[in-house]
Amino acid sequence: MQLMEDMILREGKVLPGGILKVGSFLNQQIDPALLRAVGDEIAAMYEGKGTTKILTIESSGIAIAAAAGIAMGVPVLFAKKHKTSNVDGEVYKARVHSFTHGNDYDAVVSRDFLSSDDKVILVDDFLASGNALKGLLKLSEEAGAEVLGAVVAIEKRFQGGGDELRAEGLRVDALALIESMDDSGVTFGEIE
Amino acid sequence: MQLMEDMILREGKVLPGGILKVGSFLNQQIDPALLRAVGDEIAAMYEGKGTTKILTIESSGIAIAAAAGIAMGVPVLFAKKHKTSNVDGEVYKARVHSFTHGNDYDAVVSRDFLSSDDKVILVDDFLASGNALKGLLKLSEEAGAEVLGAVVAIEKRFQGGGDELRAEGLRVDALALIESMDDSGVTFGEIE
Repeated sequence: MQLMEDMILREGKVLPGGILKVGSFLNQQIDPALLRAVGDEIAAMYEGKGTTKILTIESSGIAIAAAAGIAMGVPVLFAKKHKTSNVDGEVYKARVHSFTHGNDYDAVVSRDFLSSDDKVILVDDFLASGNALKGLLKLSEEAGAEVLGAVVAIEKRFQGGGDELRAEGLRVDALALIESMDDSGVTFGEIE
Repeated sequence: MQLMEDMILREGKVLPGGILKVGSFLNQQIDPALLRAVGDEIAAMYEGKGTTKILTIESSGIAIAAAAGIAMGVPVLFAKKHKTSNVDGEVYKARVHSFTHGNDYDAVVSRDFLSSDDKVILVDDFLASGNALKGLLKLSEEAGAEVLGAVVAIEKRFQGGGDELRAEGLRVDALALIESMDDSGVTFGEIE
């Protein structure tokens, strides 16, 4: 997606340790034109597939998932990062390791909102090692839901998670696919 | 807003302790038609006011803020609930007490994304004691930004926070204003 690549080139900051800062347009502040375009792009990718739920995880996946939900007319569901008093009764749970924060958490969704009747798209802002998506996949499998595929705003392909998931047969699309990045810049690629 | 009131009457669950569960359409699962309508409603309320930022707090305010951002073409900014490695350098911070979780946290936004040039709308899902909005107000004041007003999806007026903020001169709109609620039902009101 041209707009996403352009924004990364113009506003992204590459830091040591494979970190890409996109806080000015995606991660803390969110550009509305980009958001609308992302929603439309995801809607186009999954047109006619019978999607019933867009599943993401708090917090930075929610805006993208909301944009896709608005564009597709499909309910958005977000997994919470631990069991809180806001989640009713029985839940699906998956343990996830966060590289960013260096800790583990439980991704949790209420059983009320995901079932074997659902056809799900997984959505997130970043795909690196793929741990968050694997957690969402596990939640969906526990619920017996069909996972149509996953869409991420930015994949750092050199961290391997995306290709691992593709090797397991999951459809994974990245709106910007980063093959490599360093002080001198970012190199984009495409899935063959 | 009729649609919000209808959804609360049809799907909301009143629990002891002044808790209203709206997880099926607003808080964990989000209805796309409602979301789009909320965005349009906020856009109509603030048409021609020169809004430059929509400020919310993770997590459950983000979808609503994103919908408003898409409808208005205005950037969305969300405060995080503690200082993480994803937030660059200098930040604005405000201590907030959460009644839901019974703890305190810091609401944090990067100084890069809020300044005295900004005209801000504060957005959140619930307004009860008003602590989250007060935190967002404090962040905005620290930045020297002008706060045009606040919009919440649901105000539990009997918990007092909304009227406190109005008494301080803030414009506060609720898409559904709950005067009282108990086992027998929910009573809506309007700001005179």
